[in-house]
Amino acid sequence: MTRRHDTVSFLSDYGLDDEFVGVVHAVIRDLAPPARVVDLTHGITPCDIRAGSLALARSIAWVPEGVVLAVVDPGVGSSRRGIAVEVAGGAGVLVGPDNGLLAPAVAMAGGADRAVELSNAEFHIEAAAATFDGRDVFAPVAAHLCNGVDLTALGPEVDPALLMPATIPLPRAVDEANPDAGVVAEVMWVDRFGNCQLNVGPDDLPPLWDTHLRVTLPDPDDISATVTRAVSAVGHFAAVGAGIGLVLDAYGMFALCCDRRSAAEELHLDVGDQVTISPGDAPEPVATPVSFTR
Amino acid sequence: MTRRHDTVSFLSDYGLDDEFVGVVHAVIRDLAPPARVVDLTHGITPCDIRAGSLALARSIAWVPEGVVLAVVDPGVGSSRRGIAVEVAGGAGVLVGPDNGLLAPAVAMAGGADRAVELSNAEFHIEAAAATFDGRDVFAPVAAHLCNGVDLTALGPEVDPALLMPATIPLPRAVDEANPDAGVVAEVMWVDRFGNCQLNVGPDDLPPLWDTHLRVTLPDPDDISATVTRAVSAVGHFAAVGAGIGLVLDAYGMFALCCDRRSAAEELHLDVGDQVTISPGDAPEPVATPVSFTR
Amino acid sequence: MTRRHDTVSFLSDYGLDDEFVGVVHAVIRDLAPPARVVDLTHGITPCDIRAGSLALARSIAWVPEGVVLAVVDPGVGSSRRGIAVEVAGGAGVLVGPDNGLLAPAVAMAGGADRAVELSNAEFHIEAAAATFDGRDVFAPVAAHLCNGVDLTALGPEVDPALLMPATIPLPRAVDEANPDAGVVAEVMWVDRFGNCQLNVGPDDLPPLWDTHLRVTLPDPDDISATVTRAVSAVGHFAAVGAGIGLVLDAYGMFALCCDRRSAAEELHLDVGDQVTISPGDAPEPVATPVSFTR
Repeated sequence: MTRRHDTVSFLSDYGLDDEFVGVVHAVIRDLAPPARVVDLTHGITPCDIRAGSLALARSIAWVPEGVVLAVVDPGVGSSRRGIAVEVAGGAGVLVGPDNGLLAPAVAMAGGADRAVELSNAEFHIEAAAATFDGRDVFAPVAAHLCNGVDLTALGPEVDPALLMPATIPLPRAVDEANPDAGVVAEVMWVDRFGNCQLNVGPDDLPPLWDTHLRVTLPDPDDISATVTRAVSAVGHFAAVGAGIGLVLDAYGMFALCCDRRSAAEELHLDVGDQVTISPGDAPEPVATPVSFTR
Repeated sequence: MTRRHDTVSFLSDYGLDDEFVGVVHAVIRDLAPPARVVDLTHGITPCDIRAGSLALARSIAWVPEGVVLAVVDPGVGSSRRGIAVEVAGGAGVLVGPDNGLLAPAVAMAGGADRAVELSNAEFHIEAAAATFDGRDVFAPVAAHLCNGVDLTALGPEVDPALLMPATIPLPRAVDEANPDAGVVAEVMWVDRFGNCQLNVGPDDLPPLWDTHLRVTLPDPDDISATVTRAVSAVGHFAAVGAGIGLVLDAYGMFALCCDRRSAAEELHLDVGDQVTISPGDAPEPVATPVSFTR
Repeated sequence: MTRRHDTVSFLSDYGLDDEFVGVVHAVIRDLAPPARVVDLTHGITPCDIRAGSLALARSIAWVPEGVVLAVVDPGVGSSRRGIAVEVAGGAGVLVGPDNGLLAPAVAMAGGADRAVELSNAEFHIEAAAATFDGRDVFAPVAAHLCNGVDLTALGPEVDPALLMPATIPLPRAVDEANPDAGVVAEVMWVDRFGNCQLNVGPDDLPPLWDTHLRVTLPDPDDISATVTRAVSAVGHFAAVGAGIGLVLDAYGMFALCCDRRSAAEELHLDVGDQVTISPGDAPEPVATPVSFTR
């Protein structure tokens, strides 16, 4: 039985200043007129496969049934293959390059049921060159999947276990024997608001730590040194006050944050930086300065 | 009788570099598949409630019937409430935080008919944390409104008069007794082209002023001083020539502008700056320099 | 017989930080609810008619049948006229200002069948001012075309031969008598990835040149000098290695490129810069350095 799809959820590093995204939309509209395209984001840093894979993984739980089209593809035109990966009993198909970009989202969707290599040119657009597979291969394949073309028509099946994996760094204890010595984490994502998402969830922090924590991070003025700042575990941004907060974010991960300011700017943090989270002391009560002279 | 909606007009400060906007689209597509989302803008400066409220007010006259979803929400997760406000006899419902963001648009749409607090979790998405109400509260509520859920099912009614108001600065006369002494205005909006919209409309300027005006503005080189520039009242940008123009813009407000250049850059102006508009002298005719020597 | 359209492909220099694009969408949604809008791009440099015309020309082959709405319009409100141009036997209608913006796309679509001046205000939105024709003239006209309004109802026909043309610079030989002396090209487009598209296609380079080429370009440190770099003709970006490549891009034009880096940054190139492509020498084989001491 033919399964049709009516939504293409689209993520790329194409940006919106050029017409790349628009042309992909045009191709899908032309080949599969009823399909709707949901733009997840096109603001991935150019060629940053890992950032794209993380954004896709953060989105996948909310993506409607249908096709997911993801393109961060510095190897376009080379021997890297294009793939389509079926998940969730056929409710979803992820289409993109086999470079690790799709792997975390496929895993979060329950793993690959089937996968094919996109080698059947019948479902591609003939092009002057091999530098824009988003337009010439991935978009038409996504449209044809919407139209009910079977996965196996797109090319030979490949073993899902042999698809390119992604590597997500795990947090580690400062001292395995002493959990209270702290957790070494990595900044996975800095969002528009300057929140710094860490690769640390509730299971990675000792449950007995109270809300007074410390973060140790690179000293921006001395590459060989670190600085330590007090951090409050908080439930939402406005609760942070004037300092630094650690909030459980909407994706179930901890993020360093400020209230209406950028924690990334305040702490000079960027994606890939390592920080250590450890228990802190309750802050000294702030004495209101009093002056007896007028 | 159930009223369904088929359009969600969406404004936020989420930007497009992260997947926030895309995930909101995904949620609406999932819960209310026939609905169409019109993105008004997501480029509001992060957490700038006033800028968001002004952009929404500028848009509202052109927004189609249906749901308006607006999220500039630094207080997300705190005690600030989420609201839905019905306007125009039910033709429109504005959904967002009760922080003043919706107020000017509600007023321009004729005022609130009814309002409710979005406390019924049955119409929300259960989430790991309270930091992304756009995805977890406002988007599902917008989708359920499209599907015909009644406003009053979303939570208890609140008195529209008690919703958070917005404060829009009004222009004032330099000298109440002498209208020709000028009008003190504020820059409300600097657009992509560098046009500086003022909080001044046709009713705020004395009708007898001719097209030769003056603008007095902060001196960029001396914080305690001002500079004065000649300004021509013009009907469109190309009529400005090499100088500065004051144009009645497409929203019925006056804007300082240049022809194919940024008035904001030329005049070193930003949102919130104060300027004084006053009558000017007709410019001296420019004498063509003539030289009698070869 | 009435021809209806169901897609509006939309390009502008409005950017996405203001609500201009959103309001145009809102107007089309309001006036022609079934129509779908495909955003080609809104990232054209403000008022850069040529950049807009080139982006539209690069897109047009992939745009679905229907209306094309293009607005880069520094002369809005002046005597420049708005036009609608029918192409491809009525399969497409391009709507925008008559300032050269539409001309290259019209030519690539086979030339204009008919054209009209958009002077019939019955199909416009009445507005406070003449500064936002995208909202008040072009969007409603596009919507009415979708609804089946005949082209000739929009205003009087104008001779397509009298529409404003575009000027695209052609490459030229360094020495007409000696093709191997090189081709003087111009950078037409720098994309997000830093690829520099030249106004040179396969027919403009002597077919006997091998893959070893040279590019001569402005010296960033000395305005009166040039520098010469070795360039490899390659089939895709990843084949470039550490140097500079010349790739036939997805639009059938040659582009200077790097692998996962910006050629524009590496070569200090911007739109409008002139470069000379000429044959090069095969590179010296790189000797692997060997050390006989420990």
